[in-house]
Amino acid sequence: MSESKPVVGIIMGSDSDWPTMIHAHKILDSFKVPNEYRVLSAHRTPDLAAEYAKTAEARGLKVIIAGAGGAAHLAGVLAAYTVIPVLGVPIMSRSLNGVDSLYSMVQMPAGIPVGTLAIGEAGAKNAALLAVSILGVADPNMREKLHTLRKEQHDKIAKITLEG
Amino acid sequence: MSESKPVVGIIMGSDSDWPTMIHAHKILDSFKVPNEYRVLSAHRTPDLAAEYAKTAEARGLKVIIAGAGGAAHLAGVLAAYTVIPVLGVPIMSRSLNGVDSLYSMVQMPAGIPVGTLAIGEAGAKNAALLAVSILGVADPNMREKLHTLRKEQHDKIAKITLEG
Amino acid sequence: MSESKPVVGIIMGSDSDWPTMIHAHKILDSFKVPNEYRVLSAHRTPDLAAEYAKTAEARGLKVIIAGAGGAAHLAGVLAAYTVIPVLGVPIMSRSLNGVDSLYSMVQMPAGIPVGTLAIGEAGAKNAALLAVSILGVADPNMREKLHTLRKEQHDKIAKITLEG
Amino acid sequence: MSESKPVVGIIMGSDSDWPTMIHAHKILDSFKVPNEYRVLSAHRTPDLAAEYAKTAEARGLKVIIAGAGGAAHLAGVLAAYTVIPVLGVPIMSRSLNGVDSLYSMVQMPAGIPVGTLAIGEAGAKNAALLAVSILGVADPNMREKLHTLRKEQHDKIAKITLEG
Amino acid sequence: MSESKPVVGIIMGSDSDWPTMIHAHKILDSFKVPNEYRVLSAHRTPDLAAEYAKTAEARGLKVIIAGAGGAAHLAGVLAAYTVIPVLGVPIMSRSLNGVDSLYSMVQMPAGIPVGTLAIGEAGAKNAALLAVSILGVADPNMREKLHTLRKEQHDKIAKITLEG
Amino acid sequence: MSESKPVVGIIMGSDSDWPTMIHAHKILDSFKVPNEYRVLSAHRTPDLAAEYAKTAEARGLKVIIAGAGGAAHLAGVLAAYTVIPVLGVPIMSRSLNGVDSLYSMVQMPAGIPVGTLAIGEAGAKNAALLAVSILGVADPNMREKLHTLRKEQHDKIAKITLEG
Amino acid sequence: MSESKPVVGIIMGSDSDWPTMIHAHKILDSFKVPNEYRVLSAHRTPDLAAEYAKTAEARGLKVIIAGAGGAAHLAGVLAAYTVIPVLGVPIMSRSLNGVDSLYSMVQMPAGIPVGTLAIGEAGAKNAALLAVSILGVADPNMREKLHTLRKEQHDKIAKITLEG
Amino acid sequence: MSESKPVVGIIMGSDSDWPTMIHAHKILDSFKVPNEYRVLSAHRTPDLAAEYAKTAEARGLKVIIAGAGGAAHLAGVLAAYTVIPVLGVPIMSRSLNGVDSLYSMVQMPAGIPVGTLAIGEAGAKNAALLAVSILGVADPNMREKLHTLRKEQHDKIAKITLEG
Repeated sequence: MSESKPVVGIIMGSDSDWPTMIHAHKILDSFKVPNEYRVLSAHRTPDLAAEYAKTAEARGLKVIIAGAGGAAHLAGVLAAYTVIPVLGVPIMSRSLNGVDSLYSMVQMPAGIPVGTLAIGEAGAKNAALLAVSILGVADPNMREKLHTLRKEQHDKIAKITLEG
Repeated sequence: MSESKPVVGIIMGSDSDWPTMIHAHKILDSFKVPNEYRVLSAHRTPDLAAEYAKTAEARGLKVIIAGAGGAAHLAGVLAAYTVIPVLGVPIMSRSLNGVDSLYSMVQMPAGIPVGTLAIGEAGAKNAALLAVSILGVADPNMREKLHTLRKEQHDKIAKITLEG
Repeated sequence: MSESKPVVGIIMGSDSDWPTMIHAHKILDSFKVPNEYRVLSAHRTPDLAAEYAKTAEARGLKVIIAGAGGAAHLAGVLAAYTVIPVLGVPIMSRSLNGVDSLYSMVQMPAGIPVGTLAIGEAGAKNAALLAVSILGVADPNMREKLHTLRKEQHDKIAKITLEG
Repeated sequence: MSESKPVVGIIMGSDSDWPTMIHAHKILDSFKVPNEYRVLSAHRTPDLAAEYAKTAEARGLKVIIAGAGGAAHLAGVLAAYTVIPVLGVPIMSRSLNGVDSLYSMVQMPAGIPVGTLAIGEAGAKNAALLAVSILGVADPNMREKLHTLRKEQHDKIAKITLEG
Repeated sequence: MSESKPVVGIIMGSDSDWPTMIHAHKILDSFKVPNEYRVLSAHRTPDLAAEYAKTAEARGLKVIIAGAGGAAHLAGVLAAYTVIPVLGVPIMSRSLNGVDSLYSMVQMPAGIPVGTLAIGEAGAKNAALLAVSILGVADPNMREKLHTLRKEQHDKIAKITLEG
Repeated sequence: MSESKPVVGIIMGSDSDWPTMIHAHKILDSFKVPNEYRVLSAHRTPDLAAEYAKTAEARGLKVIIAGAGGAAHLAGVLAAYTVIPVLGVPIMSRSLNGVDSLYSMVQMPAGIPVGTLAIGEAGAKNAALLAVSILGVADPNMREKLHTLRKEQHDKIAKITLEG
Repeated sequence: MSESKPVVGIIMGSDSDWPTMIHAHKILDSFKVPNEYRVLSAHRTPDLAAEYAKTAEARGLKVIIAGAGGAAHLAGVLAAYTVIPVLGVPIMSRSLNGVDSLYSMVQMPAGIPVGTLAIGEAGAKNAALLAVSILGVADPNMREKLHTLRKEQHDKIAKITLEG
Repeated sequence: MSESKPVVGIIMGSDSDWPTMIHAHKILDSFKVPNEYRVLSAHRTPDLAAEYAKTAEARGLKVIIAGAGGAAHLAGVLAAYTVIPVLGVPIMSRSLNGVDSLYSMVQMPAGIPVGTLAIGEAGAKNAALLAVSILGVADPNMREKLHTLRKEQHDKIAKITLEG
């Protein structure tokens, strides 16, 4: 765990989601955004999940990132208990390739939003980047770092040479 | 509401689900199964939904039927808080025809089951019939009534005449 | 096979479904629910399947769990011949990832319900847990055991530590 | 009903399928193929459906056409009880547009074939034409009529004029 | 190739379909149905495909089985040129798991039927069995053999023992 | 029909496709691209379709646009008989919303390309614009007109005012 | 347009999206969040879209909401040119019910996030609420208003009475 | 890179697309069509992508082939900035098997066409062949070569022998 008081919480429904969600953690660390990460199940530990979300604002969290697969209720359940932004990462499922996870997250009813990212690793990375972008609303330093990253991404693509 | 102490609770995420879910209520009434029905949202009234499920067993409910659409978390959230059987009815959604509702209900993780029925009205009816069937585990009278219904259904089909 | 007179029957369309369905059997055993398991095909042994369902109630079965893949008619066919609760487990199919199995099971017409669980192993486990929950309508001991399991599931999640 | 002994049976799961399936009947009539039509449900009248299929061969039926929607088990259930060709017509379903009907019919396991046609009216018409084509294996007259129809279809298309 | 004059033709769009379609050939051989098999592409050898279908009836073919994947036009193109029954086997595709193959085959317009079987190996086997069943319209011996096979399939399922 | 010798042919599988495909015709007319339009079915008039495509190059056609729905083989069948560019427009189908039409067109095997546009009216319009763009390879005037259209499209969007 | 300098920009690909996107505008107005709204097409006015996104940060925008349908590139294209949070609303499409819009928005590659909401009106409303929530990172007043809204939503659900 | 001034540009969103897109390059080389290939991301290097497309016509490019996966905006973004034909190749995606890539490419709005080919390798090959076909509008030599290839493809299929 980061030493400073965390501002982003990464929650996932199962430890099998960690190989995907660790990418969010790593990016937040690379931006020096204090973050915490934890397994909490909307179905097996509903009280802990509710408690986590209810106390998130008071504990100083600014954004919650939730990863889950299948009937992926975690992000929606957390969002039901907090007004801070909740971002969802649909995890690849074995039978339906993550379509179930995606639909379960993104199709939230009016009133309780979950900002949903791509299925799997790209989504976990982008959830972290969107969290940084959201922190940027209050912290110009974050925006600067994002501009730097964008430049690096740009230059990395620009110098690729393909072998024919 | 039925006058006797309800043994089946019909819960739905929005009053727009009532035209679908009322079919469950009507069938339960026709079987003289005391039942209650109520709108509770997994996202907009998460505490009420949790409370409902947590107290269901003590209040004498034997089965909960939950209807919801879109990111249909209601059945799963109720199931997370009770060990009595929870049956799910995926409601037709405007954009995805109920596939989102179905996947969000049926793809529950191991540990917290939701017995899912068909999308829409057929599902609502069958949820009631499955509830009656479940009550039949303890009440032979229910099974008798189901046998009678099956016979009626059979005879109704058997005497259809088509006009060529 | 369990020694006592079985109260739950686990039926599957092919022995290739056994590695999935054995999870239902193991959970029922862990709950000391007498259960039997058998391959019966809705298409290749329709008479045996019909006979099994027709005699289930008289033989003392309280719940039938049916697993099948592809055009997964087994659960529906069994449900057509009995009024005891039938639970369906859609098995992963090679070409369509189990969507065919799911739709074939869950989209039953009004009148003949099949309570459908998730595709694959999670569904097999949850079918067993839902069966236990259904038995709990008549047997408080079952409910107690489910509360214990829920507590264990909860604690198991609660103590997971992720390595960053 | 046709006066001669029917050689094609048109079966459907509900009288709501008749507006679709009547197209099969009309085409068979136009080919002067004696045919019968009837509502039989795989789920609500399973014994009648089984009986129908078991006795079909002895009664002189050469082909069975089955139309059903949703968890469309009818064609497969009939095919399980007879060795004469069974053709399936997936009926449009309200929630899933007939994809459920299609998958439930076409994805039959090895051993029990159902020759499946298109969803809806086109499928009903083509089931009749395929039945005629199958009768043509024993009856050259049928083939002749099909050649005539093909010619008419051809000429009808060939003379269409579009208004720009 | 079988020595007698073939009555069933097995056509496929690519030699990569042969490992799937060989199952049709083997079943036809086991029923002693003279059959031929050949690669013909609706797109790369359209003239040969058209010629094959146009001459099929005169050459004594009774049924054509066509396997193809992706934009699987082969069965439809053959059906366009002949009035003998054409059965389609959708081959698993790499990107879309055979859904593309299935839709391309089964959704034929009214007028030109293709009796479509399951995606992949089960479909290839069932296409052969349906062809035998069609031949049975004129040849009682074929029906007898099918009854025998059905009995064998039945008994094989009936004696399976699962290890708990 | 345009008076000059047509350079683009618009073909469709049914006259019910004309309300969609007429948009291609109108755009070509607006670009003063001589074009012809005609109903030709890959299945009901396969010989005419083959003939059309085989003679297209010699007749001076530069591009063929084909619209079809369901098992939409028309574009692929035309492409099989010509080396001039074939563009496909998947037509909305009643049951599957055009997904069947799309897959049947776009998933062509290596060797015979069909450049596929969007489902329905947008696709018909874009097929015409892509045809103009292709003609632009040899005719700078076409490119000029496209630049003009792009500018108009741009300005039309740019001046939209929304009422809040 | 709001009189104060806008902090949220609502962009849509076509004026036909306005009946959906106006819901985002109305919610922002109800929260007294200065907002602007405009039609900009990723394809027909790519330069204007790029310019809009590039200058958004300097102009004081804190969040961009983009609604688009079909090949819905707008949100992704805007996100490519800015580091402020971009939220996407997939608009219902005629042929594919918005699945195309959803996939085109949510499946962004790692590096450029788009926080995607539900298809259609619910998504438009939730995009506004998520924008308010994001503003809440810097403005406690926004959070207060969200808490108030949540309470209202809760109470509205809690007092619904259904007529049996 | 080819030595002559390129007339076809092959662009892809990531170097991980190269193993797919190299097939387009190889076919163009085999036709002696000067071509260039390059990684350009619609999201990470939007300015370079825009610049590439804007200057393509002036640089003498006749066709652009764009391959991309997931929210595959590349082809559409390039098409937005040029009037020369843009062909799209949807790349297989990890979670959704390329359906996301396909929908993101093919469902372009009226006004900006992208001629879309099959998902993956077959699509890459066919994009090259369609490009050659388009060049054939101005260069009869290209058409000749295509006729030769068609003949070779035909003969290759025609002489396949299957081992039974």
